[in-house]
Amino acid sequence: MRIFGELPGLYEGDSFRNRLELSQSGVHKPTQAGISGGQNEGADSIIVSGGYEDDEDYGDIIIYTGHGGRDLSTGKQVTNQELVRGNLALAESCKNGLPVRVIRGAHRKSNFAPEDNYRYDGLFRVEDYWKEKGKSNFIVWRFRLRKIEGELKKQSNVLQEEQAEYNSKEDKQTKRIETRVQRIVRDTILSKKIKEKYKYTCQVCDTQIETSSGYYAEAAHIKPLGAPHNGPDSEDNLLCLCPNHHVMFDYGGFGILKNFELIGIEGKLKIMKGHLINKDYLRYHLEHFYDEKNR
Amino acid sequence: MRIFGELPGLYEGDSFRNRLELSQSGVHKPTQAGISGGQNEGADSIIVSGGYEDDEDYGDIIIYTGHGGRDLSTGKQVTNQELVRGNLALAESCKNGLPVRVIRGAHRKSNFAPEDNYRYDGLFRVEDYWKEKGKSNFIVWRFRLRKIEGELKKQSNVLQEEQAEYNSKEDKQTKRIETRVQRIVRDTILSKKIKEKYKYTCQVCDTQIETSSGYYAEAAHIKPLGAPHNGPDSEDNLLCLCPNHHVMFDYGGFGILKNFELIGIEGKLKIMKGHLINKDYLRYHLEHFYDEKNR
Repeated sequence: MRIFGELPGLYEGDSFRNRLELSQSGVHKPTQAGISGGQNEGADSIIVSGGYEDDEDYGDIIIYTGHGGRDLSTGKQVTNQELVRGNLALAESCKNGLPVRVIRGAHRKSNFAPEDNYRYDGLFRVEDYWKEKGKSNFIVWRFRLRKIEGELKKQSNVLQEEQAEYNSKEDKQTKRIETRVQRIVRDTILSKKIKEKYKYTCQVCDTQIETSSGYYAEAAHIKPLGAPHNGPDSEDNLLCLCPNHHVMFDYGGFGILKNFELIGIEGKLKIMKGHLINKDYLRYHLEHFYDEKNR
Repeated sequence: MRIFGELPGLYEGDSFRNRLELSQSGVHKPTQAGISGGQNEGADSIIVSGGYEDDEDYGDIIIYTGHGGRDLSTGKQVTNQELVRGNLALAESCKNGLPVRVIRGAHRKSNFAPEDNYRYDGLFRVEDYWKEKGKSNFIVWRFRLRKIEGELKKQSNVLQEEQAEYNSKEDKQTKRIETRVQRIVRDTILSKKIKEKYKYTCQVCDTQIETSSGYYAEAAHIKPLGAPHNGPDSEDNLLCLCPNHHVMFDYGGFGILKNFELIGIEGKLKIMKGHLINKDYLRYHLEHFYDEKNR
């Protein structure tokens, strides 16, 4: 059984001499692959060892490159990567908010790598995934991982305690520390303005969601906020969507062509007078998030 | 204009002699009401002063009681509260993840109140809202607020810096520290099992959402996790829903009767063989989250 999250007796900073030791301890089971995971289950751990020319390590944030497409003897990228196997497992972890154990291997180019051996560096969350042209001009899949700490970790621990209490009451297994995960959605004040402009109806399907306290919609950034996309929080980069189409848009279920026809699903984006959408952002989203091959 | 979040020159622990001083500083504008907010805008600040017999203060978590229904001379709860005015504003803050400034007033019953005057105690997020019978046997609306700190605060700050950078590039206003907010959705490993059981189709509307990396659905806890509800993370307390119906369910847009007919919207819950749903949890949800009066 694949275990997500913390393992009993495993602490941040723990060192492992080699891949075999990592494998036998259960921290990262595969002895060759950098991503441990099943494509329907999610990824439980990754090794960051600088093997991919496109990896970027900023300490608490890692831009990790998926696997595939490399020449086995030279290590050079020789073909496009696809959203399959370990890459798909990391995408699954992203959608379900599963925690990923990160192990760093020694690498002279990284400021955050250990000097030798392998080091367990804690739990990270896959915040986002997308594709782009890598340094070798082939498509690579990229995953932004952020370390889970502070409030989220505290929350997870509180929840784990609640869970343990519940489990012991019900006389079930008492160790389920892997069960709690979280997904974060960001919102902004400008988001509220765009939602009001559309009276909380979805620009794709016209749905207007009603709650006990009024209507609900979500504002979607076309070119995402945050590095490396650095999309702006401005009206020409925002859409008013229902949660269903927001999820589909963020996870590449559909894209928007420059004539506002949808691709991946039927239909055309509804646009209110005075809402000017920047078409460069639409193209950015199409190139990085929409994946035609999987249709 | 209502300003959400931090104010220039305002620091946690700042003391104010009285409501007038709080009002004039802009920290909490109304001089009488405990909730500052507009029902279409959200609430920007609250005063926790122990005036309501049902308030509970745990420091970083506050279970705050909405306003209304009290006898003005005795302060006793004499009728049901409704989800209107300040209460609706706090609900709006919850749905949009807006930060709320919390000011505590002196109160002998609370361990977290200042000894005298009013103290600004930082930003909180409204995690959840529901109704219940209060100590006086009348319906009160309750809001669980959690202090924003640690990773989330750090993330907000990073985002604010990005924002400031963007603003200065574009030569727009440079102070928009109030623009970043976040909403958190929790997920669990058991959630994944229930989603697989239903092949990622919604039990309300049969929608199956497709992304570039496969199907997407959400698992909804009927009786929520976490205090004070303390619903279990077990299959009999979980539903597989599309994000739209998950949001509607959590925010009281519909309820589920014991014969699995829906109330608030048309339809009946689809249930797979072998998925036993605990009807006590359905009743708990109906009583606490579904609000018939607003239909």
